[in-house]
Amino acid sequence: MTESFDAVDVIRTKRDRGELSDGQIDWVIDAYTRGAVAEEQMSSLAMAILLNGMNRREIARWTAAMIASGERMDFGKLSRPTADKHSTGGVGDKITLPLAPLVAACGVAVPQLSGRGLGHTGGTLDKLESIPGWRAALSNDELMRQLEDVGAVICAAGDGLAPADKKLYALRDVTGTVEAIPLIASSIMSKKIAEGTGALVLDVKVGSGAFMKELADARELAETMVALGTDAGVKTVALLTDMSTPLGLTAGNALEVRESVEVLAGGGPADVVELTIALATEMLAAAGVTDIDPAEKLRDGTAMDAWRRMIAAQGGDPDAELPVAPEQHVVNASVDGVLTELDALAVGVAAWRLGAGRARKEDPVSAVAGVELHAKPGDTVRAGQPLLTLHTDDPSRFARALDALTEATTIAPADGPQYRPGPLIIDRITA
Amino acid sequence: MTESFDAVDVIRTKRDRGELSDGQIDWVIDAYTRGAVAEEQMSSLAMAILLNGMNRREIARWTAAMIASGERMDFGKLSRPTADKHSTGGVGDKITLPLAPLVAACGVAVPQLSGRGLGHTGGTLDKLESIPGWRAALSNDELMRQLEDVGAVICAAGDGLAPADKKLYALRDVTGTVEAIPLIASSIMSKKIAEGTGALVLDVKVGSGAFMKELADARELAETMVALGTDAGVKTVALLTDMSTPLGLTAGNALEVRESVEVLAGGGPADVVELTIALATEMLAAAGVTDIDPAEKLRDGTAMDAWRRMIAAQGGDPDAELPVAPEQHVVNASVDGVLTELDALAVGVAAWRLGAGRARKEDPVSAVAGVELHAKPGDTVRAGQPLLTLHTDDPSRFARALDALTEATTIAPADGPQYRPGPLIIDRITA
Repeated sequence: MTESFDAVDVIRTKRDRGELSDGQIDWVIDAYTRGAVAEEQMSSLAMAILLNGMNRREIARWTAAMIASGERMDFGKLSRPTADKHSTGGVGDKITLPLAPLVAACGVAVPQLSGRGLGHTGGTLDKLESIPGWRAALSNDELMRQLEDVGAVICAAGDGLAPADKKLYALRDVTGTVEAIPLIASSIMSKKIAEGTGALVLDVKVGSGAFMKELADARELAETMVALGTDAGVKTVALLTDMSTPLGLTAGNALEVRESVEVLAGGGPADVVELTIALATEMLAAAGVTDIDPAEKLRDGTAMDAWRRMIAAQGGDPDAELPVAPEQHVVNASVDGVLTELDALAVGVAAWRLGAGRARKEDPVSAVAGVELHAKPGDTVRAGQPLLTLHTDDPSRFARALDALTEATTIAPADGPQYRPGPLIIDRITA
Repeated sequence: MTESFDAVDVIRTKRDRGELSDGQIDWVIDAYTRGAVAEEQMSSLAMAILLNGMNRREIARWTAAMIASGERMDFGKLSRPTADKHSTGGVGDKITLPLAPLVAACGVAVPQLSGRGLGHTGGTLDKLESIPGWRAALSNDELMRQLEDVGAVICAAGDGLAPADKKLYALRDVTGTVEAIPLIASSIMSKKIAEGTGALVLDVKVGSGAFMKELADARELAETMVALGTDAGVKTVALLTDMSTPLGLTAGNALEVRESVEVLAGGGPADVVELTIALATEMLAAAGVTDIDPAEKLRDGTAMDAWRRMIAAQGGDPDAELPVAPEQHVVNASVDGVLTELDALAVGVAAWRLGAGRARKEDPVSAVAGVELHAKPGDTVRAGQPLLTLHTDDPSRFARALDALTEATTIAPADGPQYRPGPLIIDRITA
């Protein structure tokens, strides 16, 4: 990195709809990481990228430069192939919890470096921390050993991976520049590529509870990420999945762990099971394993065994009682009919206001808070029957959570036109 | 200012091509001035404004909010009307020097709060500081007294006027967001309106040596500023003037003072005289004075008297010898013909490299450095005849100055198609 550029020239290039050269991209990411490009300069560049876009070469180079800003992990010495999954985030999306041990039970190692939740979508680490004793922080050596011994690790991403992304993400969060597809794609993929997984399956959510509200945007993001992974030598596939209503019947930390354990025990809500198996099948295929049926591993208990080993290896007690909310409030159906809408965003915001999520990254979260659903779209309901149960430590939180839910549900007359929910898995994107 | 907003919401509004509300604009400017909106937030907002624009209401409100961030001056107690002039900056643009005393000599007070130069266009204060003893800093009381006694003041703008603009301008300079017409217009007009002038004449330059290279951009800027001034109750007129070649025959600090004194003595280059009289006529008319011919005041010496009083009132000696460059280098014409091009930007950059301007605002400038022109476009020249003389303190600067000038001049065969320079005053913009 010997060539030097001027930050204002780089900004002007993108502002005036030009293409950033490889040298400009390498320099600006490196200089930003070192502090030689100021936050306010990266901020105007990010806005210019959001409004004027980047082409495939620019995005690939931007991603490579973010990877080069930190360390790269290497799972080449493991005795089995690796596959990872990334979800763009949704309400009730606990899929990583049953998925990682399930794929491990099928012989593919899963290095799942995760984050904490911010806003209305929960974080995987927050969920697991509701298990007494479980800890998210592992050294690289511990991670490697657990991957070899157990086959599945869900832990906090270290500070060494793509530090440029960490700095840029915090900046985008406060400058209105989160919603730039090139920056979202390069942020996700720089971490996943640096992490060193051999195969990657992306769960790109679309709908009210997702980051991408429109199918076209979700598709563009998925295609961009699949191209980035493929160009970097990682076998990458994406599923576009519905997030107009929550996944499963729970949104909240301990609530979602409990539901995940039900899935691992061979039960659980049909949509969670469907998506877990679909993603497991993709991960196994991407890692070259095509002769094992993951559904069988849920039925025969080997996925549950892997779960127990995974939790125990990180200090958690898989037999411990999960905490339960001291305060609960039931919302009943007001009329007879068919539930045609149960809005994901509304449920996510309610769970967040009940204490399950955080507004700032230093806020604590409640293990017990959340929303339990007693019906899903398509179900017939009767007036007075429970629709939702709100869980919290703090009953003063019910009012604002209920505010979020005032328009969350729609019940149509049972004798009206028949309601058919859309598919959970909308499309599959490959290179 | 009781209503509060979220910075990211304000940024998103403009990013998504929405209109900023009056409340949002008032809040964001006030919060930015107080430090509650961070530099990186204002930076992404500035880029969104540059790329998505603002409408007339938004620009007017933005300007009003910047004015409200500081103090306002009031010239209502003066015994005569006031008129001010602002130039968007050009090479050899010393017009303020003869203009302010000329208009004062016609009975209209001129409160010219000026800045220092940055880049290739010189600053009025830098030019006057080549006069031994002259000082730019005046208190508000001194300013008011001099306006009453002499009728003309050229001094440094205090820190109290539009502090939001000062902060925002410094930010735009490093974030590639200078070139946004709504921000340029509001920056200039917030200071001029806060300054309290009754009438304002804008000299909006267009051409290679100007900020605006294209006539359409210059016209849009002029129209925007005229509308802002008019909406704020200031009688405002703009002239669009040519800056493809330098004004007059000098670019440099002491060099331009000398030329200005020639104009005040009834001589000087025709273009400087033409523009000085045109702007004086506009300023007088805008201030309601239509029965005085400024050309007469140049001829009869009353403008020169006003200049001498103005310089002396600020400690300068109007009879002092101006400093002369110890090192000079002459550039001769290489062929016979007609000078058809003498590029303003090239001359401006050469003068700057010779020491007349500064790259950073804390740099010193040389009083003697600059470029003297011996011919103007349209003049017939002979091979070997001097075209330019470069002036500097430091002969090691000649090489880079000459580099800037390699393509500055074009000499066409005398028997070719007749060359006619374009008009100096291109258009006049009124409300």
